[in-house]
Amino acid sequence: MKHWLMLAVLTASPPTTPAAETLRTTLLSVRDNVRLDSWEMSGRKATPKSPNWSIQKMTLHGGKQEGVDVIVVDNGRLKFTVVPTRGMSVLSVTMGDVRLGWDSPVKEIVHPRHINLQSRGGLGWLEGFNEWLVRCGLESNGHPGTDKFINNVGDEASMELTLHGKIGNIPASEVEVIVDPEPPHRIRVRGRVDERMFYGPKLELQTEISTEPNSDTIRISDVVTNHGAEEQEFELLYHTNFGRPLLEDGSTFLAPVARVIPFNDHAGKSVADYARYAAPTRGFIEQVYCLHPIADAQGQTIIALQNKAKDRAVSMRFSVSELPFVTLWKNTTSEADGYVTGLEPGTNFPNNRRIERKLGRVPKLAPGARHTATIDFGIHIGGEAIAGIAKHVAAIQAARQPILENAPEKKE
Amino acid sequence: MKHWLMLAVLTASPPTTPAAETLRTTLLSVRDNVRLDSWEMSGRKATPKSPNWSIQKMTLHGGKQEGVDVIVVDNGRLKFTVVPTRGMSVLSVTMGDVRLGWDSPVKEIVHPRHINLQSRGGLGWLEGFNEWLVRCGLESNGHPGTDKFINNVGDEASMELTLHGKIGNIPASEVEVIVDPEPPHRIRVRGRVDERMFYGPKLELQTEISTEPNSDTIRISDVVTNHGAEEQEFELLYHTNFGRPLLEDGSTFLAPVARVIPFNDHAGKSVADYARYAAPTRGFIEQVYCLHPIADAQGQTIIALQNKAKDRAVSMRFSVSELPFVTLWKNTTSEADGYVTGLEPGTNFPNNRRIERKLGRVPKLAPGARHTATIDFGIHIGGEAIAGIAKHVAAIQAARQPILENAPEKKE
Amino acid sequence: MKHWLMLAVLTASPPTTPAAETLRTTLLSVRDNVRLDSWEMSGRKATPKSPNWSIQKMTLHGGKQEGVDVIVVDNGRLKFTVVPTRGMSVLSVTMGDVRLGWDSPVKEIVHPRHINLQSRGGLGWLEGFNEWLVRCGLESNGHPGTDKFINNVGDEASMELTLHGKIGNIPASEVEVIVDPEPPHRIRVRGRVDERMFYGPKLELQTEISTEPNSDTIRISDVVTNHGAEEQEFELLYHTNFGRPLLEDGSTFLAPVARVIPFNDHAGKSVADYARYAAPTRGFIEQVYCLHPIADAQGQTIIALQNKAKDRAVSMRFSVSELPFVTLWKNTTSEADGYVTGLEPGTNFPNNRRIERKLGRVPKLAPGARHTATIDFGIHIGGEAIAGIAKHVAAIQAARQPILENAPEKKE
Repeated sequence: MKHWLMLAVLTASPPTTPAAETLRTTLLSVRDNVRLDSWEMSGRKATPKSPNWSIQKMTLHGGKQEGVDVIVVDNGRLKFTVVPTRGMSVLSVTMGDVRLGWDSPVKEIVHPRHINLQSRGGLGWLEGFNEWLVRCGLESNGHPGTDKFINNVGDEASMELTLHGKIGNIPASEVEVIVDPEPPHRIRVRGRVDERMFYGPKLELQTEISTEPNSDTIRISDVVTNHGAEEQEFELLYHTNFGRPLLEDGSTFLAPVARVIPFNDHAGKSVADYARYAAPTRGFIEQVYCLHPIADAQGQTIIALQNKAKDRAVSMRFSVSELPFVTLWKNTTSEADGYVTGLEPGTNFPNNRRIERKLGRVPKLAPGARHTATIDFGIHIGGEAIAGIAKHVAAIQAARQPILENAPEKKE
Repeated sequence: MKHWLMLAVLTASPPTTPAAETLRTTLLSVRDNVRLDSWEMSGRKATPKSPNWSIQKMTLHGGKQEGVDVIVVDNGRLKFTVVPTRGMSVLSVTMGDVRLGWDSPVKEIVHPRHINLQSRGGLGWLEGFNEWLVRCGLESNGHPGTDKFINNVGDEASMELTLHGKIGNIPASEVEVIVDPEPPHRIRVRGRVDERMFYGPKLELQTEISTEPNSDTIRISDVVTNHGAEEQEFELLYHTNFGRPLLEDGSTFLAPVARVIPFNDHAGKSVADYARYAAPTRGFIEQVYCLHPIADAQGQTIIALQNKAKDRAVSMRFSVSELPFVTLWKNTTSEADGYVTGLEPGTNFPNNRRIERKLGRVPKLAPGARHTATIDFGIHIGGEAIAGIAKHVAAIQAARQPILENAPEKKE
Repeated sequence: MKHWLMLAVLTASPPTTPAAETLRTTLLSVRDNVRLDSWEMSGRKATPKSPNWSIQKMTLHGGKQEGVDVIVVDNGRLKFTVVPTRGMSVLSVTMGDVRLGWDSPVKEIVHPRHINLQSRGGLGWLEGFNEWLVRCGLESNGHPGTDKFINNVGDEASMELTLHGKIGNIPASEVEVIVDPEPPHRIRVRGRVDERMFYGPKLELQTEISTEPNSDTIRISDVVTNHGAEEQEFELLYHTNFGRPLLEDGSTFLAPVARVIPFNDHAGKSVADYARYAAPTRGFIEQVYCLHPIADAQGQTIIALQNKAKDRAVSMRFSVSELPFVTLWKNTTSEADGYVTGLEPGTNFPNNRRIERKLGRVPKLAPGARHTATIDFGIHIGGEAIAGIAKHVAAIQAARQPILENAPEKKE
């Protein structure tokens, strides 16, 4: 601990804001004792031959979002907002008339200090849930409920896991923005989020959220590292959420899948229809499906959500060795209650970790070991582009017939 | 969500403080990304013909009150302090030698980030309890304990309700001060507090706390709105608390009442004496009475607390259709432990919601519906004024004999 | 409450920083509404004839330590860091190549707003645990678990106590730095931490952490006061924690002891070896010993930790009437998981308060009564100095043979 306190001492004088020309700026840092309240960088100044991008760091005020840090990246074509204070979640992405995101009943970007994960029988996470992309994990994710752990005296004790774990409500410790000095001047927002405790996990999330000027894609590249001396379980699930305009009556989900298994009996009744979406429906009860995606020869799969007209879509490409499972969450309830669907690649399905462990889906990291996960997101506009996605999905599916189960897994 | 993030982007440059002349100032706003650290407005400048009022916005420092926002309104005769950070509670009101408020053992204005409502078996709310007026609600109020709710998979689940709910520990999202440009230049502090979550209540409290220059009255006017798509239960109780000088050995409570029911057997033993107060008594156990107030022809009732000499009093007028029940909380314990009485008009009595529901006292709001509640507070000085209050109470009571029950309601 | 709000009003204009010449500075104050973001004082300016000391107040940024206040005192020979935001804990002390402190897996100085003490079955305290010295208490300390308390209706109710209580996660309400104007210019950091609630404890911790310029000692002098009107239980334990360089394979613990009792059966197996330390050992399960120290004629005892070469040591002197029990916590696990030993003088052993009460080790404070505790810490360098400590310990132990028990106390 000595070294970083010493560093803090050395940098106690206010940090000089690095000139935009360096193309690398520390926005937040425990190590250097830095937090920039507001800051911006623009292509016009930094890369005059590629002038149309900008990055802006702001601090939010009022209500439960007092003191929340956000970073808005505009690549000249699409714009996205990263929230360091909420575990490097991504609030939304917009490109023309397409938005990746949704209208949650939670209207503020809630500071973690106002979240009690244990509230409401372990559902406190839902008081801050409104992002397009929020990671669930790292020690555990999924449904709340009792699980065992090893306590300080070496005994097996039980604890109440809370919905979707802690990582989405831990502020990032180190955040920097880097713009590649050479064309195509990739814009990179990097953050480190620590989920560490004594007598508990010592897990680190290092993320890079990046795009290129004028591109219609975003890449999220994460590394989870076990800094403990013992083997460590972990769970990582990307909860990406979509409302209008991609979600509407007649929208469809696309993915090459080997099997589709309903999460519970309720979802089991509608499994034949799992890939089609309804209009907002008052009193709709969520339907969740557990998918086993098929990969191409390179181990990559692609999943997508397209609107009814099939002229607007989002696609997500990732490796099934990194993220072998996809949870599809259909929550086509009233607009006011949160009309939304979740496309959720993960290391596991969102059962309580107790169940996932029993079913062999809780991976472990050896001391010092890392798990990487990369997702490439594309926004697609126009019938031709969307037809290309559908063709890509069909090519991976090939002759393999998806198996649609009617009954959930046996869990207990 | 898009619109307000966009707004946030647009207003990322520091907001210009509106000139006092506009008589309308936004102090805190999620929508406009505003928080004024300190600010003041005075009648001398703003309404020179009515120069004796002032409004001051401050930020508190140190201990558990670091970062707490307070607004002090001085109407030239009385002064009150609103706490936006704590759900628009009112800390105290002072007029000459009269104070509405009490000496809680909690000495700081505690930031909600230091409150864990689930602490101490659901009594964590008591770690911040020191206001003159704090609202209890909105999803629930009253005693902690198990109640049911509908969870994300549509099942009935159980949760541990915490004492008096969340609203008193949610920071206000929008706060503005308005002074009417025309005489009598009513001074209005408005705030919006959101109690919203996904798979839970979408309730909004909009309050206006107002007074007129040189007046001895304050009005609190609240609107609770259900922004969800489903019918929503709610509970709202105004916990107004009084210590010295109004509370002393020989103080009395005045109200026109149909029935008085003790909250438990302990209170039942002293029901005949329910309206009289004792001196601070070491080891005193709280006595709580559930009152059914009688209204006048306009549906209004009035309750009051007067000191022993009957020359200092506070009165509260409100509609029994808005607030049909009054809880009287007698806690005449030692000064050091909190010598206090609570006069608490509400939509319900402070049993756990499970009990109140069973007894038919948990109202519901249809989607988009509102519940309004207005309380007019008066401070009265001099025997004649106080005699007027007593006469008013007696006129409503008229020939109707109050029924004093010895036994509490059957609850389980 | 009136007076301090009034004070707040009076001091709403930014406080003028007292000139260093006064040798007394308020750094944080609820009473005066003060918080200095950064500040420093140096001997060069303040006491030119004793120029080698300095005091620096800083604010930390990034991650979970955003907004944390720290005070770094350099007496010209040793340097220590006090954390007002975390209950006036002391992060570390360094003198030459000796450090009092350890390398916890928790790498940030965690703001209490990110700690939920109830997390992980009541072990949430461990998410912020990395200090050299952290007090455990005041209402209770020790293991989590169910205990009884008296609730608001006077009934015995049960609550889940959380590990080591609240005091280490309560920000200080009043913090000042005083340098004696006369030689030897003792440097004093004073802080007040309130553990107060309605229907609960009204306990105050007043601490002074002091040293003299060019000294190799630190003194911590605490007063715990019961401001309630009733007798109040309390527990106070000083969790001082040491890693390298004092802890290593072959380090030894020194103390004059009457009896050594293992905390559990696991520790019982190694009681003969309780005073010797092993190298970092993967998967090591903590061993805890409960010691009854022997005092000298003045009622003072001394305990120490020395390295293998017996040329570096820390000693702690205190009164056994103030702190009658010493807990020795051996946690010689892997470096990555926290290689550490705790020397923990206290009013009790760290069993759950339910057990300590049963065994007669939960003291009570009458209304207005105080409990004082002073510990003098010395850092010792060189074989001769360390031999002196060992001799001092042996002199107190004298002919009395320590009793080493093999079995823990009967607890339930």
